Amino acid sequence: MDKYRRDRADDPGAGVPLAVVRARSTADVQAAVRFAAAHAVPVVPRGAGSGLSGGASAVDGCLVVSTERMADIEVDPVTRTAVVQPGLMNAQVKAAAAEHDLWYPPDPSSYEICSIGGNVATNAGGLCCVKYGVTTDYVLGMTVVLADGSAVTLGGPRLKDVAGLSLTKLFVGSEGTLGIVTEVVLRLIPRQRPPATLVATFATLDDATDTVLAITRQLRPSMLEFMDGPTINAVEDLTKMGLDRTAAAMLVIQSDEPAGHATAECELIAKLCSEHSATEVFHTDDPDEGEAFVVARRSAIPAVERTGTLLLEDVGVPLPQLGALVDGIAAIAADRDLTIAVIAHAGDGNTHPLIVFDPGDADMTERAQTAYGEVMDLALRLGGTITGEHGVGRLKRPWLADYLGPDVLALTHKIKDALDPQGILNPGAGY
Amino acid sequence: MDKYRRDRADDPGAGVPLAVVRARSTADVQAAVRFAAAHAVPVVPRGAGSGLSGGASAVDGCLVVSTERMADIEVDPVTRTAVVQPGLMNAQVKAAAAEHDLWYPPDPSSYEICSIGGNVATNAGGLCCVKYGVTTDYVLGMTVVLADGSAVTLGGPRLKDVAGLSLTKLFVGSEGTLGIVTEVVLRLIPRQRPPATLVATFATLDDATDTVLAITRQLRPSMLEFMDGPTINAVEDLTKMGLDRTAAAMLVIQSDEPAGHATAECELIAKLCSEHSATEVFHTDDPDEGEAFVVARRSAIPAVERTGTLLLEDVGVPLPQLGALVDGIAAIAADRDLTIAVIAHAGDGNTHPLIVFDPGDADMTERAQTAYGEVMDLALRLGGTITGEHGVGRLKRPWLADYLGPDVLALTHKIKDALDPQGILNPGAGY
Ligand SMILES: Cc1cc2nc3c(=O)[nH]c(=O)nc-3n(C[C@H](O)[C@H](O)[C@H](O)COP(=O)(O)OP(=O)(O)OC[C@H]3O[C@@H](n4cnc5c(N)ncnc54)[C@H](O)[C@@H]3O)c2cc1C
Ligand SMILES: Cc1cc2nc3c(=O)[nH]c(=O)nc-3n(C[C@H](O)[C@H](O)[C@H](O)COP(=O)(O)OP(=O)(O)OC[C@H]3O[C@@H](n4cnc5c(N)ncnc54)[C@H](O)[C@@H]3O)c2cc1C
Repeated sequence: MDKYRRDRADDPGAGVPLAVVRARSTADVQAAVRFAAAHAVPVVPRGAGSGLSGGASAVDGCLVVSTERMADIEVDPVTRTAVVQPGLMNAQVKAAAAEHDLWYPPDPSSYEICSIGGNVATNAGGLCCVKYGVTTDYVLGMTVVLADGSAVTLGGPRLKDVAGLSLTKLFVGSEGTLGIVTEVVLRLIPRQRPPATLVATFATLDDATDTVLAITRQLRPSMLEFMDGPTINAVEDLTKMGLDRTAAAMLVIQSDEPAGHATAECELIAKLCSEHSATEVFHTDDPDEGEAFVVARRSAIPAVERTGTLLLEDVGVPLPQLGALVDGIAAIAADRDLTIAVIAHAGDGNTHPLIVFDPGDADMTERAQTAYGEVMDLALRLGGTITGEHGVGRLKRPWLADYLGPDVLALTHKIKDALDPQGILNPGAGY
Repeated sequence: MDKYRRDRADDPGAGVPLAVVRARSTADVQAAVRFAAAHAVPVVPRGAGSGLSGGASAVDGCLVVSTERMADIEVDPVTRTAVVQPGLMNAQVKAAAAEHDLWYPPDPSSYEICSIGGNVATNAGGLCCVKYGVTTDYVLGMTVVLADGSAVTLGGPRLKDVAGLSLTKLFVGSEGTLGIVTEVVLRLIPRQRPPATLVATFATLDDATDTVLAITRQLRPSMLEFMDGPTINAVEDLTKMGLDRTAAAMLVIQSDEPAGHATAECELIAKLCSEHSATEVFHTDDPDEGEAFVVARRSAIPAVERTGTLLLEDVGVPLPQLGALVDGIAAIAADRDLTIAVIAHAGDGNTHPLIVFDPGDADMTERAQTAYGEVMDLALRLGGTITGEHGVGRLKRPWLADYLGPDVLALTHKIKDALDPQGILNPGAGY
């Protein structure tokens, strides 16, 4: 049972399940939920368990419904859709699409270790969504098992469909609180062009965040990622690729415009970087050389994790506030005497402050927990959100009411109560 | 009162409102809905009344809440968002964005005569959505007045936000049945590049629809529109631009790839057209010359309207069924001895069969109404939808239950009942 108690947030408060159901079909999931409904047993849906907000952590006496054995995919290259079971990894969806020269864009850094069902349940983002959007933009339909064990099919392989309420979109991002997704119809697009990559370093945080605004004001790069000094150092420790350890911040940017134009876009971005006092700017058309920097960026969370235990944040702000957010986080780190490594999907205003602490050190743990709340409060003050892509899960729930306000929370509960009157679906998570 | 009884579907069954409220603010809308809730009076939200499914037609004794006097806009070029009141026309949103070198993509053919609130309520599509998506993809947040007269603000100017349920997305496309939208936060993107345009004619419908599949299989044009013979002739009557009246079908295609690449994409498309026996293929890099064909395509509905009264359909199918749908509609037209002119957002599989009839001719009117149902039944048999972008409104409601099935309809009613227990919001429309 132990393997199914926690996701990557490693919630110390995770409970012990009554049982784990490794479903092989929609019917299996229905059987499990019918049992749970009859006995008022909580159900925790679980994909690959890579979640960072405790959304899949078990509650005592629950049924964990794992989708790991539901991993089929069928790609229809003419309709440009894929029908996918929820347990398939994001990377495998991409691979199956690529066999038909097609592309499933959403690319969480965890794409090799997260399931498509988890992606749908959290409305996962990623690196390319600054240009290509998030998971919901690619979900055309789904089969979902409701709280009474019935299964409904919403939407389907139609590129446009407005008949009835947008129920598909309501279930995307509902973190397993409204139903269990057992099949998804995804929209695919033609293969991405090989991108050109630009890397720039800066002596101050403000130079880097100002550059981000200058870029998004006029261009649409296919990736616009940020790492601060502590992150650069952690990644350099891991990769030894020769990153500038003295830099305050680094941007990793890609353009997937057609050949020639990608280079031109990178040149324009290089100019903007220089105008904002970049200390070094490098760009390459070689996809492999570029990919090394993207891999470095993707390895940021594991790299920082080597330096201590993490409290992982996911705050986002309206873009003009990005600088204030990053500066404010640095101030909180100084104030609480902690390392907070910041990575960001900068082009979306979505940051991941990683608060490093030693759980053996009670005082430091308390300071880390205080900082965890302070970062969310800061984001809220800046007009931002407590979670841009990881979901509320169980860990960010105490901050949700403040963010939504009582009226939106009441509206939310009306829908939850209508769809899950017993409250058995993922209780304590989401909202 | 008469001006507010009908939308462009001209529903002969439209009722007479009790009163029309021309709101100037969210507070005005709240006052109207509070009154309606207290007296159990139905409320029909109304934008510009360009709807094609009777969604804004009045019911007897209702309050029509018109947003025509709520037409402010504020563009934030750094966040790349616009905060818009619902009564502003789509074309004015585009114009305000363009002042900042930004672009609001969704472009219903009616863009000069439809409001952004109506677009949000119907999740409007258009010509460029084959590449750029539909209205919901650009809605980041909204203020909405609920059935009890309270106003809630959902989402906001954050490019990524997964805190709480995706309520914003639920309200998009809800056709005024869950609340009245009084403010919208829209996502903007950098200005579109001047497109290259290709026009091709075909001697058979199948040649044209096969070409569509060949194109979408490998390319991502920014427009991929279809007109059949009757449409071409009606447009030619109106425009005298020299279209080939003998053609069975015509495609209007655009590419907005960067200079050079757009031409190359058009050349590739031209080759695919020729391989599928196009009778004529023409392409141009001159945006004005190209725009003339797009204007022709946009004028199709008014052009066909000059030949008689219309029953306007909006059926969509999975792309591989496009040929079967278009052929099947031609068979229905022959069978019922009617002209059915077909235009289509072909790249999305979304067609608009326009059934022409003379309301003075009782027999013809009956045949037209029979055909109206037969076209939707055909789409359903092909795995399609009864409405791709215009909404269910009041006219397509008899077909909705068949499309959704009892389980999805029950789920829909649970949400409707939870949010509007008195059922006062746009009764009889949507579902
Ligand atoms: C190193 C690292 C990097 C990451 N980078 C990103 C990133 O860039 N962007 C991003 O968005 N996330 C990122 N994540 C977070 C995580 O990978 C995503 O949230 C992912 O979508 C979770 O998928 P999963 O299959 O692991 O879901 P789980 O962790 O198993 O579950 C996540 C949530 O979804 C629910 N759920 C799972 N499956 C279903 C289902 N079939 N039906 C209904 N509910 C279900 C669970 O109950 C839970 O609430 C990262 C995580 C790690 C460890
Ligand atoms: C010539 C022509 C071409 C067209 N081409 C297209 C096309 O290409 N793509 C497309 O999608 N549509 C098209 N349409 C249909 C129509 O323009 C769209 O449905 C448009 O979105 C309706 O906007 P409106 O402001 O006119 O809304 P209305 O007709 O006033 O209302 C439409 C629906 O929205 C509701 N509503 C309106 N405002 C609000 C609000 N503020 N809050 C809540 N509910 C509200 C109404 O109750 C009604 O149900 C076309 C119409 C015409 C006449």
